[in-house]
Amino acid sequence: MSFSGGWRLEAAVKRFGGSRQVTSYVPEGIRPTVIVLVGLPARGKTYISKKLTRYLNWIGITTKVFNVGDYRRRKTSETSHGFFDPSNAQASRLREECARLALEDVSHYLTVEGGEIAVFDATNSTRRRREAILKQCAAANFSVFFVESICDSQAIIEANILDVKVNNPDYRNLNDKEAALQDFLQRIQHYKTEYEPLDEQNAQDSQLSFIKIFNQGERFLINRLQGNIQSRIVYYLMNIKVGYNRCIYLIRHGESMLNLLGRIGGDSDLSERGRTFARRLGEWIDERCCDKDRPPLRVWTSHMRRTIQTAAFIKTPHVLSHWKALNELDAGVCEGMTYEEIAEKLPTEFANRDKDKFNYRYPQGESYGDLVARLEPVIMELERQSHVLVVCHQAVARCLLAYYMDVKHADLPYVRVPLHTVIRLTPVAYGCISEQISLDIACVDTHRDKPVNTDVARSSDDALSTLPEHY
Amino acid sequence: MSFSGGWRLEAAVKRFGGSRQVTSYVPEGIRPTVIVLVGLPARGKTYISKKLTRYLNWIGITTKVFNVGDYRRRKTSETSHGFFDPSNAQASRLREECARLALEDVSHYLTVEGGEIAVFDATNSTRRRREAILKQCAAANFSVFFVESICDSQAIIEANILDVKVNNPDYRNLNDKEAALQDFLQRIQHYKTEYEPLDEQNAQDSQLSFIKIFNQGERFLINRLQGNIQSRIVYYLMNIKVGYNRCIYLIRHGESMLNLLGRIGGDSDLSERGRTFARRLGEWIDERCCDKDRPPLRVWTSHMRRTIQTAAFIKTPHVLSHWKALNELDAGVCEGMTYEEIAEKLPTEFANRDKDKFNYRYPQGESYGDLVARLEPVIMELERQSHVLVVCHQAVARCLLAYYMDVKHADLPYVRVPLHTVIRLTPVAYGCISEQISLDIACVDTHRDKPVNTDVARSSDDALSTLPEHY
Repeated sequence: MSFSGGWRLEAAVKRFGGSRQVTSYVPEGIRPTVIVLVGLPARGKTYISKKLTRYLNWIGITTKVFNVGDYRRRKTSETSHGFFDPSNAQASRLREECARLALEDVSHYLTVEGGEIAVFDATNSTRRRREAILKQCAAANFSVFFVESICDSQAIIEANILDVKVNNPDYRNLNDKEAALQDFLQRIQHYKTEYEPLDEQNAQDSQLSFIKIFNQGERFLINRLQGNIQSRIVYYLMNIKVGYNRCIYLIRHGESMLNLLGRIGGDSDLSERGRTFARRLGEWIDERCCDKDRPPLRVWTSHMRRTIQTAAFIKTPHVLSHWKALNELDAGVCEGMTYEEIAEKLPTEFANRDKDKFNYRYPQGESYGDLVARLEPVIMELERQSHVLVVCHQAVARCLLAYYMDVKHADLPYVRVPLHTVIRLTPVAYGCISEQISLDIACVDTHRDKPVNTDVARSSDDALSTLPEHY
Repeated sequence: MSFSGGWRLEAAVKRFGGSRQVTSYVPEGIRPTVIVLVGLPARGKTYISKKLTRYLNWIGITTKVFNVGDYRRRKTSETSHGFFDPSNAQASRLREECARLALEDVSHYLTVEGGEIAVFDATNSTRRRREAILKQCAAANFSVFFVESICDSQAIIEANILDVKVNNPDYRNLNDKEAALQDFLQRIQHYKTEYEPLDEQNAQDSQLSFIKIFNQGERFLINRLQGNIQSRIVYYLMNIKVGYNRCIYLIRHGESMLNLLGRIGGDSDLSERGRTFARRLGEWIDERCCDKDRPPLRVWTSHMRRTIQTAAFIKTPHVLSHWKALNELDAGVCEGMTYEEIAEKLPTEFANRDKDKFNYRYPQGESYGDLVARLEPVIMELERQSHVLVVCHQAVARCLLAYYMDVKHADLPYVRVPLHTVIRLTPVAYGCISEQISLDIACVDTHRDKPVNTDVARSSDDALSTLPEHY
């Protein structure tokens, strides 16, 4: 044997066995932070809140949205614009009460429940309201970052109302879309009478940390940015493109020679059936992406032969790139082994992985957590592109899917991503639709569910009970 | 032997042998871009230009600064403020001529010399001048991004003049600092009479892509950000902290057991002498970093035992973090091998690495280029911190040093970073001072210079001619 292989396996396992260090770009802990949205209704505050929260959870920062509208809806079924008239004293009291309750829950979340960032989604459109929030947060030692969305394009506002608000919980019982739109525009008018935007020229506001987003990203004003987390939030907000006319195709490479053998990792060629899939995929893409009016399809593969071979039959004009960041999770000393071999040679490692698959790092290899960190630039770039085909690997596809479908870290390593199947992701109002389209080429199953028994002392049968068949 | 090790070595070398794929976050080519600085004198334009250029080259984007002042200095020795009076027609013509020449060189750089980004460092303080630049760039199909620095704090401006401008090439022959300061303030007055800042409310300006930086980063305005590169430039500019009262200590781990054996990579413990160094380092840091008025020292290690053990004896209060991003370059199938073994078993790989060490990627491992990409978040975080001790590895330290000291990619893998030596990095006006402080604990030398003969057919003696001694 080569010195190299043996050394890696023994020394590495000795060192890393059972280690559970979670990787993160943020080397230190995070001071609890409240992200406070600001803006008139229909300015995309909830869109920003949900999307930002999904992103932060994905990169490993425990985050939750607190939407004051939800609190109000629990207290009253009243939704007509008169309820939002500032001269309606009783309604105003109720709305303030809702904000107070939501802020109490924010505080509980950040101090008791282990939350790291709370997103406070409400109009927060007066300086008085914002000062009350600042005061409470200062008392609890939370840092505060304001995110204001400003829009003066009537077209964007009306599109937003029709797209999101008419399906708003407030209008669930209204069939008349036009009436809903008119009522909502009136509601906005009520807020406008009192609205005080964040103003960098104002002596108090100028001391605050905030980002103002103009017309969905046409322009940004950033004031007194503090620390790593605020900086990453701003970077993300500056990268996301609003607009739904795009989709992402996510696929794994075709079946590989090592797939056939039930061996993990490695860098093998496609099997006969894998090549058949690659050809079929080429036709399938050519049929769908030949629209000359659209920007050319981006095709991204990893640096591994099986993804490059899978993308080789696309004929429609496209821009092809290879990203090392899309390479499969590095299984370290277990690269090229079967699960049976791992269970036999490294039973403790195997059990530890089953216990906490997201955080488990292969000796000399990677964890799913590492993979998420490595895929962050890919997500950033996906956010800016219109039409992309990502040809990647099982663990990589799981991480990308988890971002789009808001999958928790604990469930992420068990997301089903079969071979020879196209996953079409289409962004919609507050989320994403995921469709699986099988191209109907036979292949092995590579999905191994979490076994019931994850104890280190389990039998080999228990350890392998969820293993799919292979040669 | 384990299946794993053997499989990796053979299949991987077959696949990756001699491959030279360069990793980058940017999967596609870059449209040639001109970054146009805007602002009055003494607003840090040259500081921003040089620092941004250094960063862009480090991440692999070929970038160069074109400073119009340098062109002027080649044409005339005139530096008194009268030369910058707009009513001085002859001088104005000469200054326009210099701008024109610089822009010609920009164009040559981006179209003929293979440059990707040109940084055009001048005041560009009138709309007319900026329109002329835009017109020329549009004709050549260059994209344009403006970076304006605005400062209304007299304290910052005067500090900047004294710090940078009095050492300015224009004042090389003036001993009287106060006269230089007064003359420079007059020069600024001349520019002020004509200065038209970028204005997002102006119909033309509002269509441009730009960032305005207020008071060295207190506030940013970002307009019409386009594409990955502009986005990364903005992220970088929002992260850099101006101000020199800080320093970075960069060290490698103490001598390890594998260092003693001349084996690369791995994850071994410190040797006896390595432990002596760790204890000495602890005392050395305790003596220097006990100032209670400063923010606590940050100590960052990799996830490897030798760096963690090296940082273990520091007693002064500090914040300790472990970054996987700081782990040593992954030598893939060569992990744990000696250079003699690599030369014997994988002579082609060994020669290919010597031919182009920066871009060479170990089979199943990493290249220096990969490492730079992995270290980018570390650099971003170093830019925001005041006092950091980074305990890392030879290749990692080379990459970090290359960022600070502006080392070219070709030279980067040969930067000398001896064991048991503290490198103190101190930012100064337009660069960084690097001092090496040996803590005088004996250790092996791990530096292998580029051999003269890098031909695949070379003899083993030739291949090993620059190898340092080891046991």
